[in-house]
Amino acid sequence: MTNQPLGGNDLARFSGPQTFMRLPEATSPEGLDAAIIGVPMDIGTSWRSGARMGPKQIREQSAMLRPFNLQTGAAPFDGLNVADLGDVAINTFSLAETIRTVSRSYDRILRQPLVPLTLGGDHTLSLPVLRSIARVHGPVALVHVDAHADVNDTMFGVRECHGTWVRRAREEGLLRPSKVWQIGLRGTGYTAEDFREAAGWGFHIRQAQQLWHQPLKALAREIADQIGDAPVYVSFDIDALDPAFAPGTGTPEIAGLTTPQALELIRGLHGLRIVGADLVEVSPPYDMAGTTALTAANIVYEMLCVLPGVPYR
Amino acid sequence: MTNQPLGGNDLARFSGPQTFMRLPEATSPEGLDAAIIGVPMDIGTSWRSGARMGPKQIREQSAMLRPFNLQTGAAPFDGLNVADLGDVAINTFSLAETIRTVSRSYDRILRQPLVPLTLGGDHTLSLPVLRSIARVHGPVALVHVDAHADVNDTMFGVRECHGTWVRRAREEGLLRPSKVWQIGLRGTGYTAEDFREAAGWGFHIRQAQQLWHQPLKALAREIADQIGDAPVYVSFDIDALDPAFAPGTGTPEIAGLTTPQALELIRGLHGLRIVGADLVEVSPPYDMAGTTALTAANIVYEMLCVLPGVPYR
Amino acid sequence: MTNQPLGGNDLARFSGPQTFMRLPEATSPEGLDAAIIGVPMDIGTSWRSGARMGPKQIREQSAMLRPFNLQTGAAPFDGLNVADLGDVAINTFSLAETIRTVSRSYDRILRQPLVPLTLGGDHTLSLPVLRSIARVHGPVALVHVDAHADVNDTMFGVRECHGTWVRRAREEGLLRPSKVWQIGLRGTGYTAEDFREAAGWGFHIRQAQQLWHQPLKALAREIADQIGDAPVYVSFDIDALDPAFAPGTGTPEIAGLTTPQALELIRGLHGLRIVGADLVEVSPPYDMAGTTALTAANIVYEMLCVLPGVPYR
Amino acid sequence: MTNQPLGGNDLARFSGPQTFMRLPEATSPEGLDAAIIGVPMDIGTSWRSGARMGPKQIREQSAMLRPFNLQTGAAPFDGLNVADLGDVAINTFSLAETIRTVSRSYDRILRQPLVPLTLGGDHTLSLPVLRSIARVHGPVALVHVDAHADVNDTMFGVRECHGTWVRRAREEGLLRPSKVWQIGLRGTGYTAEDFREAAGWGFHIRQAQQLWHQPLKALAREIADQIGDAPVYVSFDIDALDPAFAPGTGTPEIAGLTTPQALELIRGLHGLRIVGADLVEVSPPYDMAGTTALTAANIVYEMLCVLPGVPYR
Amino acid sequence: MTNQPLGGNDLARFSGPQTFMRLPEATSPEGLDAAIIGVPMDIGTSWRSGARMGPKQIREQSAMLRPFNLQTGAAPFDGLNVADLGDVAINTFSLAETIRTVSRSYDRILRQPLVPLTLGGDHTLSLPVLRSIARVHGPVALVHVDAHADVNDTMFGVRECHGTWVRRAREEGLLRPSKVWQIGLRGTGYTAEDFREAAGWGFHIRQAQQLWHQPLKALAREIADQIGDAPVYVSFDIDALDPAFAPGTGTPEIAGLTTPQALELIRGLHGLRIVGADLVEVSPPYDMAGTTALTAANIVYEMLCVLPGVPYR
Amino acid sequence: MTNQPLGGNDLARFSGPQTFMRLPEATSPEGLDAAIIGVPMDIGTSWRSGARMGPKQIREQSAMLRPFNLQTGAAPFDGLNVADLGDVAINTFSLAETIRTVSRSYDRILRQPLVPLTLGGDHTLSLPVLRSIARVHGPVALVHVDAHADVNDTMFGVRECHGTWVRRAREEGLLRPSKVWQIGLRGTGYTAEDFREAAGWGFHIRQAQQLWHQPLKALAREIADQIGDAPVYVSFDIDALDPAFAPGTGTPEIAGLTTPQALELIRGLHGLRIVGADLVEVSPPYDMAGTTALTAANIVYEMLCVLPGVPYR
Repeated sequence: MTNQPLGGNDLARFSGPQTFMRLPEATSPEGLDAAIIGVPMDIGTSWRSGARMGPKQIREQSAMLRPFNLQTGAAPFDGLNVADLGDVAINTFSLAETIRTVSRSYDRILRQPLVPLTLGGDHTLSLPVLRSIARVHGPVALVHVDAHADVNDTMFGVRECHGTWVRRAREEGLLRPSKVWQIGLRGTGYTAEDFREAAGWGFHIRQAQQLWHQPLKALAREIADQIGDAPVYVSFDIDALDPAFAPGTGTPEIAGLTTPQALELIRGLHGLRIVGADLVEVSPPYDMAGTTALTAANIVYEMLCVLPGVPYR
Repeated sequence: MTNQPLGGNDLARFSGPQTFMRLPEATSPEGLDAAIIGVPMDIGTSWRSGARMGPKQIREQSAMLRPFNLQTGAAPFDGLNVADLGDVAINTFSLAETIRTVSRSYDRILRQPLVPLTLGGDHTLSLPVLRSIARVHGPVALVHVDAHADVNDTMFGVRECHGTWVRRAREEGLLRPSKVWQIGLRGTGYTAEDFREAAGWGFHIRQAQQLWHQPLKALAREIADQIGDAPVYVSFDIDALDPAFAPGTGTPEIAGLTTPQALELIRGLHGLRIVGADLVEVSPPYDMAGTTALTAANIVYEMLCVLPGVPYR
Repeated sequence: MTNQPLGGNDLARFSGPQTFMRLPEATSPEGLDAAIIGVPMDIGTSWRSGARMGPKQIREQSAMLRPFNLQTGAAPFDGLNVADLGDVAINTFSLAETIRTVSRSYDRILRQPLVPLTLGGDHTLSLPVLRSIARVHGPVALVHVDAHADVNDTMFGVRECHGTWVRRAREEGLLRPSKVWQIGLRGTGYTAEDFREAAGWGFHIRQAQQLWHQPLKALAREIADQIGDAPVYVSFDIDALDPAFAPGTGTPEIAGLTTPQALELIRGLHGLRIVGADLVEVSPPYDMAGTTALTAANIVYEMLCVLPGVPYR
Repeated sequence: MTNQPLGGNDLARFSGPQTFMRLPEATSPEGLDAAIIGVPMDIGTSWRSGARMGPKQIREQSAMLRPFNLQTGAAPFDGLNVADLGDVAINTFSLAETIRTVSRSYDRILRQPLVPLTLGGDHTLSLPVLRSIARVHGPVALVHVDAHADVNDTMFGVRECHGTWVRRAREEGLLRPSKVWQIGLRGTGYTAEDFREAAGWGFHIRQAQQLWHQPLKALAREIADQIGDAPVYVSFDIDALDPAFAPGTGTPEIAGLTTPQALELIRGLHGLRIVGADLVEVSPPYDMAGTTALTAANIVYEMLCVLPGVPYR
Repeated sequence: MTNQPLGGNDLARFSGPQTFMRLPEATSPEGLDAAIIGVPMDIGTSWRSGARMGPKQIREQSAMLRPFNLQTGAAPFDGLNVADLGDVAINTFSLAETIRTVSRSYDRILRQPLVPLTLGGDHTLSLPVLRSIARVHGPVALVHVDAHADVNDTMFGVRECHGTWVRRAREEGLLRPSKVWQIGLRGTGYTAEDFREAAGWGFHIRQAQQLWHQPLKALAREIADQIGDAPVYVSFDIDALDPAFAPGTGTPEIAGLTTPQALELIRGLHGLRIVGADLVEVSPPYDMAGTTALTAANIVYEMLCVLPGVPYR
Repeated sequence: MTNQPLGGNDLARFSGPQTFMRLPEATSPEGLDAAIIGVPMDIGTSWRSGARMGPKQIREQSAMLRPFNLQTGAAPFDGLNVADLGDVAINTFSLAETIRTVSRSYDRILRQPLVPLTLGGDHTLSLPVLRSIARVHGPVALVHVDAHADVNDTMFGVRECHGTWVRRAREEGLLRPSKVWQIGLRGTGYTAEDFREAAGWGFHIRQAQQLWHQPLKALAREIADQIGDAPVYVSFDIDALDPAFAPGTGTPEIAGLTTPQALELIRGLHGLRIVGADLVEVSPPYDMAGTTALTAANIVYEMLCVLPGVPYR
């Protein structure tokens, strides 16, 4: 019998454990097919801080989620054993040390063949997670949904932070460049080449403006077809969404994706061999009504629904 | 001469009576064609409370509304005598008693052949209102705009609350099942059958995902044609809207309707024999900038504009 | 070895379990000397709702607390085995049913000779808790810190809600009237007799205005001396505090106690035979900066520090 | 039989008319002994605007007030017939025109020998109100509780605004300078003479720093004795209070009065011949939890309690 | 060498000068091709105030902007010398005087052949700016993006305020009526003629409902073609946007434009002879997460990008 | 002629430069007697982040301040030439690098014999500032107003962060231990020795509870007498204040100092040889109404008023 979320009629939603979806908390990855892990860091952010409170707030809002996906038919807890592994014990004063700690934690967790679903925290975390993922799975395809390309070389002379992780991951061979998709990019930049260099690496870039006013089902299918059976990592920065849908984030950019588009995109990845995913950059101090964290919780749930092994009814 | 809203040049909008649109307050339904009634309850909610403050806040924001509908040509106050009847004296400690009180109040109000437009308050209120409506009009068609189907049998063992009213209304014969439309449903559920059972009853269900990225004019026309000349009740839960448009609600679900869609839908009901309507689940503590209540006030106004007897210019 | 709170250098404070002070969660009361229990209800409130979110928010803010009381020398976790028992499974739609459930839960918990420290939730909860307490300890002395006397006979015809529990407790013989202290009363009332009847019962009343501008050490000593070795229940409604210190509550009254006064009062109860305590009426939607919940967490901690068996250094 | 506030057990507090204390609204001053009047203006403010929403918000929070003053024994509605006269129809685009309109309105209202209690709105309003008051009562004593002396000659070349009204009132002979008391002054200024000139006029000035850490009963008695039987106007700027107690105001100054001090001060005026009073500068956009407006409502209530003719029990 | 914005790697974005995009501040218009100018007024507003804080907040959020427009290729600072001229010294107590001051300031600034980009402040400011513009350029074409037509004759008897400026501008011959475009109009009105009269003047009106669910590229092209080489003024009221995207404004109307539409519209004006532009009605007290001001900053940046003389890469 | 703040009648307070008190900005320390310097860092915080926005917000609120101290008679700008030197270019990703950068900046600034007044930012900044100060002045006396002693040895293994700077400063010989005063300490700790070790070093500790309910004039005089003519550094952590007065901070502790006490304390330091001062830990995301930053601005102004060379009238 797999773990099940605590039901809303068993205990009122504003009550009970503050785990993701009120799933059981686990102290060991053993026996799990997928795991929720928090990385409550924000010292890798360059504008508004607060993402350290993200994992806590996403878990709180996830109490609204029920187990069955009425819209897609997915029944994730029928097929997978899922638990919340709590937070990585990051070092809130040192970005470098935190990056090392995340890697060490994920190396240990990934001895169990599970899919880690990470709640951020700032986007820096994707780098150490990908290092651990690549040690297990080799270079991976990447579906990177974000307002920003995160391909800076350095920021303030620092090589590993929330705006550089994609460049580092590519340099270190953690990615299959021809199978990297960046979706939702927009905003302003320092040079005309900001998006062009990555295109030269083989990345597939879909700027937000190419996606306005339309469903993303076709794009999702295109991505899925192109990636095929490669192992895939999905990294979703909540600022990919328009600030109307996700005001609670550190570096918001206007004119982004809508939540229907986000759901179409994630749902369309069903069938891919997803080996890990993260949802990052929720900053609760700027999320007055909790809707950003609620959106994040839903997206993580939809990611869970498209993992290999989830039955559909 | 019918009642008219107080004009913005007669008294500054942030001033004057806190009635809907600053209409005259009435203590008796006599002589009215339509009436605004508040039901300030929230003890039927299962996640975030606060909807008890809804009627007050909707009225406050309705001060922005002027009498003439520039977009549709409707001039509601030229054709109908409308007043604000204030709030039902609910019992804030007892859901059961409140339900009885609402029924008694509406039974008394409906001795006058008027159309009640109810400001909620949580969605539980639709049940006693429908009971009173059905006593006058018999079973009615229902246009139910909502993120949730509200067809649970019980919640915490309680049979009458904000998640069960539709099932109760059907069981009690208050509805014409083949003329029930549920628009905007989405979110997660406890079983795969959540939406299917209602479909078996003859309900017409349009999930939110079927409506993304498109106008709702055609849908409204389809509904109007199907319902024909049956008496219709319209129940609009503000959480039908996406949280970007309506964050101030108790059980928000992401990826909902947009306000243009809501207006298209309501406007398209023009010509139907509407016998009552409500707008529920506005929770002001989560509506930091007042825009949810403003949206609610506008939707109630648009409902008023499509009532029988409203002239169009 | 007793349970210890998780330390801030072991895991960042914004991380880890959402228990009180990040203590271990327990599923059984066995072996505990004191227990934290949440009662997340708010349907017994008469003005602003939201207290259902209180236990969660108090626990979140309690992450700031460290084990040792630098100001009094108390080391509660050196002497007592404490855990967080989670929340009572209240029925959010029925006040009467919730009251019964709380009683049943506490009856079961109190089979273990522990001291329950309850996080509210609205003040109604003190009634069923006192019923369970009295079944174990007989009638108790009461230190009731509150802006309101809560001695109404009924509200909206309801006999058991947040404004009547003291009268009920007295009627049912749960209290020793000559050892009931009400501290911080103020505000307006319906009759001149509002405070006088209770005085006639033998209650000791200290209105807020009698306490302005002065320390409460002497008062605490007077209370302690008068109560002597009777079993005592302490009920602290956060609205006893001035809204400057505790804005996040349902029925705030101006010109209340200060937090230094609250600490002096609680600390002065050291040596009494406290058999239970609660902290109620924290309403997070009105607690924008989290300081009300932080204050509540501190007061609960100070209550813990004065329990019998706590060593002082 | 005099007007009575609507009781909290007759209709839930979050319901009912948005008049002060849910008193009856009156359209004519006839038969009234005292009247609540709103002046919803804010174009006379020099830093943060928003006070135009003040009267509405004070009325909303006043729903918490019950008729009997438990702390002083005052029963204002036993002795006085009080109603809410609604708002003056100010001109939101013209300060000069608004000042004229307020005067005209008050001249008309004061044909009835009632005591006007004005809800602001910015402090400019005290000037036209005083002009009308002086036309009826001649020059008056003034109890002016404020962080600022409001004795500027001009601001931006304008002679009548929220920082000049006291100087104008004195120049026009509306005041008895030897019976003017300014309480709570503090903050910074442009010249060393800011407070000295007024002292030279005979004004009695008590800076906030002279009042820190102490009760104000003695001061209130001193004021009452000195004023004797002269007609008195009381003007209370909410920024007299410390921002901890009243954050929702336009020009906050730190280290102000506490609410206990404010209550002691107002209560100590009992016995004076008060002919009018106002409470100004509540700015709701900066009053996140509603506590500033609640405080304002209480102070207006306390002013009502010390009017001539109020019985005490 | 033209002025450049301070880079995010030179100084952290939350640091440095509070000018627009952290451009140099200039005290003289000499040598500038375009200038940012603030007009921090809000006494011309009829509902919620606060726009006086708009320029400050827009500048604060503009720190997120980098120099190069990744989506259009525009490099505004390669072609134009731009600086922030600070704020006009408005008179916060007098609307009439403020209008005169704005005119005088712009007359002086426009002795230099630069394009003024104005940050509001309420929409009244467009009238004096247009007077100065017309003195230099003669009558201009107008692209007016707004929820409201602003063609009232008077409001409260006042002829120059935020709801009348378009009528005044037309009467005074500041506009070329056949080249006036009003985009995004919606909401309710006082008469059926609200929009019709302006149509009779030759204005081109596109109500919001005509634009729902579609890109605005074609509309922008239509406007650009129709206006041709006439000098154009662009006036963008942030309430043209839906409140989901821009809650922080004084008179929000539901069902407005989206930010993608706004960007398409502004970008499509490239090639026109723009001689001035403004962005008005940002009201920070209602902009809890700063996203309205961020949107405003982006729109001003996009306006800058379509000015004559900006190179594209 | 010394620099003067821009006056409120010259330019509306919500307008003009965002420097401290709208003083001129300077790019070089030359010719200055005192300088305002921002250090916008928050990566040294252990609970809630956001202090990086502190300097900006303090400057914004300082626009309320006028040049003359009405309460003490100080006229700082008559005697001292003061300017705002802007912010240190901190490295937002590296605490260690930021600490080095601050030292380098202050070493350069202090070549001019001025008094630096630093706006934080988290408390880590005091360490590098003190290093620079000590290089010029030798070991200094310290008046440290704070809820926390900041004498940890390490936090998460890090030796230099916001909880360790006092220990480091003492170890490095930057302080004269017998002339160190710690005022306002409170809260909970990890060991009973938390405050005792520092006492053993010769530090003078006044816990908050020793100071409740009383003026601090006598304490200030005691401090001043004891310090005598030693060079003094004043470090004021805003969390020394009670959260009622200063909710906007990262690690609030209940039952702290009041703002009157803070003013008495700072004013009582007049006559000391103050060589530097800072005000730290203002976290704007938790400062909803801006009152924490306003308080901080006032305290910095009061520090300025007690610097050597300020004339009193």
